[in-house]
Amino acid sequence: MKKKRGPLSVACLLVLVLASFPGSLRAADPPGYSEIADRIIDAAMRNQGAWDKLQYLCDRIGARPSGSPQLEAAVEWAAAEMRRDGLENVELQPVEVTHWVRGEERGWIQAPVFSRLHLLGLGRSVGTPPGGISAPILVVSSFDELSAMERQQVEGRIVVFNAPFQGYGRTAAYRTRGASRAAAKGAAAVLVRSVTPVSLRSPHTGTLVYEDGSPRIPAAAISIEDALLLQRLFDSGEPVVVHLEMGATTLPPARSANVLGEIRGRELPEEVVVLGAHLDSWDVGQGAHDDGAGVAVCMETARLLLELGLRPRRTLRVVLFTDEENGGLGGEAYRRRLGDAVGNHVAAIELDAGAEAPVGFGLGGTLPEAEFARALARVQDIGRLLAGIEAGNVSAGGGGADIAPLMREGVPGLGLRTVGRRYFEWHHSEADTLDKVDLEDLRKNLAAAAVAAFVLADLPVRLTAP
Amino acid sequence: MKKKRGPLSVACLLVLVLASFPGSLRAADPPGYSEIADRIIDAAMRNQGAWDKLQYLCDRIGARPSGSPQLEAAVEWAAAEMRRDGLENVELQPVEVTHWVRGEERGWIQAPVFSRLHLLGLGRSVGTPPGGISAPILVVSSFDELSAMERQQVEGRIVVFNAPFQGYGRTAAYRTRGASRAAAKGAAAVLVRSVTPVSLRSPHTGTLVYEDGSPRIPAAAISIEDALLLQRLFDSGEPVVVHLEMGATTLPPARSANVLGEIRGRELPEEVVVLGAHLDSWDVGQGAHDDGAGVAVCMETARLLLELGLRPRRTLRVVLFTDEENGGLGGEAYRRRLGDAVGNHVAAIELDAGAEAPVGFGLGGTLPEAEFARALARVQDIGRLLAGIEAGNVSAGGGGADIAPLMREGVPGLGLRTVGRRYFEWHHSEADTLDKVDLEDLRKNLAAAAVAAFVLADLPVRLTAP
Repeated sequence: MKKKRGPLSVACLLVLVLASFPGSLRAADPPGYSEIADRIIDAAMRNQGAWDKLQYLCDRIGARPSGSPQLEAAVEWAAAEMRRDGLENVELQPVEVTHWVRGEERGWIQAPVFSRLHLLGLGRSVGTPPGGISAPILVVSSFDELSAMERQQVEGRIVVFNAPFQGYGRTAAYRTRGASRAAAKGAAAVLVRSVTPVSLRSPHTGTLVYEDGSPRIPAAAISIEDALLLQRLFDSGEPVVVHLEMGATTLPPARSANVLGEIRGRELPEEVVVLGAHLDSWDVGQGAHDDGAGVAVCMETARLLLELGLRPRRTLRVVLFTDEENGGLGGEAYRRRLGDAVGNHVAAIELDAGAEAPVGFGLGGTLPEAEFARALARVQDIGRLLAGIEAGNVSAGGGGADIAPLMREGVPGLGLRTVGRRYFEWHHSEADTLDKVDLEDLRKNLAAAAVAAFVLADLPVRLTAP
Repeated sequence: MKKKRGPLSVACLLVLVLASFPGSLRAADPPGYSEIADRIIDAAMRNQGAWDKLQYLCDRIGARPSGSPQLEAAVEWAAAEMRRDGLENVELQPVEVTHWVRGEERGWIQAPVFSRLHLLGLGRSVGTPPGGISAPILVVSSFDELSAMERQQVEGRIVVFNAPFQGYGRTAAYRTRGASRAAAKGAAAVLVRSVTPVSLRSPHTGTLVYEDGSPRIPAAAISIEDALLLQRLFDSGEPVVVHLEMGATTLPPARSANVLGEIRGRELPEEVVVLGAHLDSWDVGQGAHDDGAGVAVCMETARLLLELGLRPRRTLRVVLFTDEENGGLGGEAYRRRLGDAVGNHVAAIELDAGAEAPVGFGLGGTLPEAEFARALARVQDIGRLLAGIEAGNVSAGGGGADIAPLMREGVPGLGLRTVGRRYFEWHHSEADTLDKVDLEDLRKNLAAAAVAAFVLADLPVRLTAP
């Protein structure tokens, strides 16, 4: 600690001393929350419940895609756990979800050499006709390159998008939009380089979006290694022929549910803060980081606050969304259920960025500028409560797919951010398993979520109030 | 640079200046080789041929296990390339090799939950009976733990060796010896955690050795993730049942060959330095680091020396061994072929540690102490020629599996060492592909191999001479 020398009043000195210590800057903390936050953090950093919940979800239920019995087992388990933990108004909100199934799938390079492709069909893709598709390939590294092609250069080919990883949002565009872009020029199918910076011949799935007006063609992710091999063979100038078989199909919508549970507010129970994550996962791996960890932390946040006797002023509602990965119908259904009561939603927090060490929150939404500025300042105040676990960084931009329908209606949305060092190596792949989660990091996520959720629900004034 | 102060002669000063600069320490270099080494390094660092050879081997031939038509295609291709490159006495030495085939294989946890195992049968393993094996598991993390078990605790079970990676040699013992150790106590089959520090649900195969006196039971490698999942389920105390189906079988020996080619020595053609690598690979991935890169570098070393007009005093013989991975019969056959002429082998260099950045050589063998010390000093002199590319570190200990039969006879054996940062993440897995090889690093390997091979073959006196 550095002390300023000179004729300063005791009060001035105190302010300066505090200002020079952001990590313990109690003066600017939301009034009265420092002690509570420290209690929450202390309990979270010794917590075992979040790990136990995550382990059950990963090891005993496993992958739980929309439409699967595993997802419905997860719904029932989560509701039962919430009731056991003492949450109030535990409820299943029925949601009809997309029921896409992968089926058998395989592919290989059949000329000029044979090499098996390591692939995963993309969510919502159609399958191939019986017997599969055999077609020459066209490799492009960007949409611009595809746009520059004449239709006859693309027609009947399997288009390979070999775009290197340049951040998730930017690179995932080839996965979500590639099929329709290529189909618009007559492509027979699409193979997309997996959206990951690192590969051990490991394909990463994810959803695609078929655009109206383009034929629906089969689309699969391939490993980086396979994309690079196809590129090298294609660059040699010889015709390269790939065979692709995908049994993917979309069945009639299946019954699923969002799982809701509350700590009712002690003063303003009609005002709600949502803390959410998604119960569904892809059909590969265990959905540990995406988004089992988020689910476990949301559930355990409520249990921890109840254990500590911390009932906030407003209602804290845990919402475990269904169908985030392959449709987003859970998030839409929750917003529809609210009707005009969406106006009572003070804030929504989503945990869907994995459980590496948290760094803080991003705040997003469609608020008027002045309201957003006030909300941001208040969330930054809350962030300071988390400086001790280095999870206090708060800036504009964030939210989550499940709370996006709320954010469209003006609800401030927070997304918990992490260091994101290896998340995309595991994301949507067989490698997203419990062993990739660090207990200490999971506890920090719990601490950050619990402090933010409690304080947001307890603030003397609404987050956006003048 | 630090200069000694005081009345020093110009000559003394020069020696001191040189001595303080190991990277350009020409004074202690093998006399006359500095300029030649620099020419070799310069040419190697601009070389394209090693990459082109490696790319052909990986992309056009691909995985080439013993007994496969791909291995025989590699044999024919390598011999043709050597002849085209101008090597002398290019010859195929016929070798009968082990012909193990993987067949179809799959496995899953069937109780208390269902989870598919990511596995690769081990080389030389027997298959399971038709219909597979379903049995409760026993998880151990070491041979000691297994030894402490009573026979009835092991009998009829599938033993899972979940030993964390502690360096290749130490950890691979569970892969090579685990099956027989478990079978000796009545185990039905063995699953071994893959020998790698990093996993994306990626199993790594490798050979096993059945010991006489133990029943031959099926054995497969599983991914780290699957090993950890089995451990967690086992630790819960509930019975954990695994189902394993392996179609592995060993067919009658197949015809293969070592590929030999020479630069005949200009003065002592009967004295030989061997530069070797192995042509075969596992049946997964492309065998890029293991050992395509070694093969390409050996072949290109000879071409490069011929191009530079560098014919050494002794014969430099490139030997591309067959069957290193799953038997070692190529190395044994080469030694047998020599008969008493093994005494004419001055040294053998093996490149089989991948093509990450080279750091230098390890020298091994069964030489008398004084001879070894002289050889080591001379190889260290050669190392100094490679200081400019940071590949000059030479110490005791090294060699390679293919040259081990020569080393047993007293031939000094050198193994090229690399930084080894990621090698074992790729080794023996689907991820050992061309994209993991860095062109610059490959060139450094070429430079190191070519300098060492030329100078060893050209030294005025034999490596071990007084």
